[in-house]
Amino acid sequence: MPSISWRARSVQASPIRKLKPLADQAKRAGKKVYHLNIGQPDIPTPKEYFDGIRQAAQGVLAYSPSQGLDEALDALAEYYRTFEISLNRDQIIVTTGGSEAITFAMLAVTDVGDQILAPEPYYTNYNSYAQITGVQIVPIETRAEDGFRLPDRTSIEAKITPKTKAILFCNPGNPTGVVYTRAELEMLAEIARTRNLYLIADEVYREFTYDGAQAISVLQLPGIEDRAILVDSISKRFSACGARIGVIASKNSSVMESALKFAQARLSPPTLEQYGLIHLLKSSEYKNFVREMISEFARRRDVVYAELQQMPGVICAKPQGAFYVTAKLPLEDAEHFVRWLLTDFSLDNETVMLAPAAEFYATPGKGRDEVRIAYVLNVDALKRAMRVLHEGLRAYTKIR
Amino acid sequence: MPSISWRARSVQASPIRKLKPLADQAKRAGKKVYHLNIGQPDIPTPKEYFDGIRQAAQGVLAYSPSQGLDEALDALAEYYRTFEISLNRDQIIVTTGGSEAITFAMLAVTDVGDQILAPEPYYTNYNSYAQITGVQIVPIETRAEDGFRLPDRTSIEAKITPKTKAILFCNPGNPTGVVYTRAELEMLAEIARTRNLYLIADEVYREFTYDGAQAISVLQLPGIEDRAILVDSISKRFSACGARIGVIASKNSSVMESALKFAQARLSPPTLEQYGLIHLLKSSEYKNFVREMISEFARRRDVVYAELQQMPGVICAKPQGAFYVTAKLPLEDAEHFVRWLLTDFSLDNETVMLAPAAEFYATPGKGRDEVRIAYVLNVDALKRAMRVLHEGLRAYTKIR
Repeated sequence: MPSISWRARSVQASPIRKLKPLADQAKRAGKKVYHLNIGQPDIPTPKEYFDGIRQAAQGVLAYSPSQGLDEALDALAEYYRTFEISLNRDQIIVTTGGSEAITFAMLAVTDVGDQILAPEPYYTNYNSYAQITGVQIVPIETRAEDGFRLPDRTSIEAKITPKTKAILFCNPGNPTGVVYTRAELEMLAEIARTRNLYLIADEVYREFTYDGAQAISVLQLPGIEDRAILVDSISKRFSACGARIGVIASKNSSVMESALKFAQARLSPPTLEQYGLIHLLKSSEYKNFVREMISEFARRRDVVYAELQQMPGVICAKPQGAFYVTAKLPLEDAEHFVRWLLTDFSLDNETVMLAPAAEFYATPGKGRDEVRIAYVLNVDALKRAMRVLHEGLRAYTKIR
Repeated sequence: MPSISWRARSVQASPIRKLKPLADQAKRAGKKVYHLNIGQPDIPTPKEYFDGIRQAAQGVLAYSPSQGLDEALDALAEYYRTFEISLNRDQIIVTTGGSEAITFAMLAVTDVGDQILAPEPYYTNYNSYAQITGVQIVPIETRAEDGFRLPDRTSIEAKITPKTKAILFCNPGNPTGVVYTRAELEMLAEIARTRNLYLIADEVYREFTYDGAQAISVLQLPGIEDRAILVDSISKRFSACGARIGVIASKNSSVMESALKFAQARLSPPTLEQYGLIHLLKSSEYKNFVREMISEFARRRDVVYAELQQMPGVICAKPQGAFYVTAKLPLEDAEHFVRWLLTDFSLDNETVMLAPAAEFYATPGKGRDEVRIAYVLNVDALKRAMRVLHEGLRAYTKIR
């Protein structure tokens, strides 16, 4: 049999999903499993989105332009305008999900063997895109104890080598829940400017901010228009994960021309899904949808954070954004704990599934005592799930 | 400004689409342009596909499993069974279009710097996937004069180096219209077997065969189950190009595990589109749809081929498959001719757009006097378009 490529062997199997068989087993055994391990919200997708799909579901389901339908580009430009981000059509490409947008950004600014800095913990799949594109992600360390704030400029600059091409960050942050301050973002911008790097911002959680925090976009930072690349997706803000509609946007025309070539190679993003988005963005309803959803997530965050505060030895900052919290637990091996919750524990025949946080770190050994909790269930279910977790943690730490 | 990557600069802009501005200009000037340059069929997508979408367009538009919905995998397995190809769920992954399937296949079997053999002319975007994945495509020459049949085994084997990992081919062929014989496929299989290569077959035109020709699948060839990789798509056979639903399938579990890791990195193929496919494949109607569509394409092919035979100096074999014909014209620079048709020529204010075939060749200079014609219009429009082409060719060759 011919061999498999080195890069195929080195890409990690989806860590968030690798415990799924244990969850399936627990369910077959009759346990209820609360899924706090994956960022799939439970909020129904807006009706206007589906209406747009229905209206377009006829005739010839043709390729859209590789860049996206003109109407989609215009609707997106209008959406960004509400955040005081001014983009023309040529500065936007509709991608097949945020995943593709990140891959296009990496392909545009790096060659094989180049490096990209990223604050860790970071979204695990960045590693997969890096392995696919032959890039090395160099972590900038942040810590649960410091609320995952960025370190100072010197520490970040110490990581830069001649191979460094970009800084990639997620704001609001998955898995940290951090929303970067203007000062933090201006520091990154200043580093990018003086060290000639691109700044790639994954802003798929833009609207998910709480306590009055505001996510400042990389495209709102002055003086780096030539090096700011926005990566975006409708998955979370419109609860449309299955749509596979994302965005790459930049005012750097070379970046956009490069991304367009990669986009042309895969012909077209999904066509009907763009009609759903166009119809949704044209309706006045979408802002209400987002507003109500964020209120709901704020309540959920409060539940999760309050419950975590009750658990002895658990360390986490109050998350200000996204719908995750990464918490340090009073134990050594969070993955073992997560497995044990599925295989050995239940409270009234219920258990909970979390994401071990080590998978969000590039530095070996880091995050081993941390978990990421995605608060994607309704408040009642979350309360119950957190109670199960609390009892599970108590039982686990007692027997260890 | 930080620089763009070498790989971004080296990926070619979509050649099939690069003449689009000239076509737009011709249209603005009031000319009717017959588009024979791109493989976007005009056949309405089956109603059952849209019904499946409509039924699923509610609730939470969630990620599907990265591998695809179980029901989609089962429906696809059943579809392949009608071709006497037996696949279980683990041997199928739903991809975001055939484009992604080819990329996954390349990533799974090659590392940066490796080589893949491919009979040329070949589908242009193979070059883009190769550039994205850092692979070199080494052409196996075939010629219009020989009806684009494969050369003998010795000529093919002469191209193999220690870096060669696979042979990639499209059957039925884009842009050639060739359907490989059993003898040709068994020769490729034998080369793959004895030289330890993968055989990657792009079979998106499987049903598009005429005159009783049958497309034999790579998965039907005995003795190479461990190295045969099928790349597929619903775009053409169900006239659903905008769906972005493809397939990678193989009985090699290492290949499938690798592809699944790449699939997990991009989370999910479009969800609703899979429901469309499931509903379509479960209806008994889809076979009738395909049968009628193929009859229609057979009539179109007859029109195009008959008209080409009337044009002095034009050389082409009668295509047996797909919906393309690549024809050698009695002129030196087909791209110039294609441009001229858009900018300088019209017959009763109509003109025609073709794809210059040089873009389908890797060998410099080859195919410069050839064009690819996609017969994706109805018979009346095609007759008219071919008459315009005939007159255009006459006028062009007279003034040169």
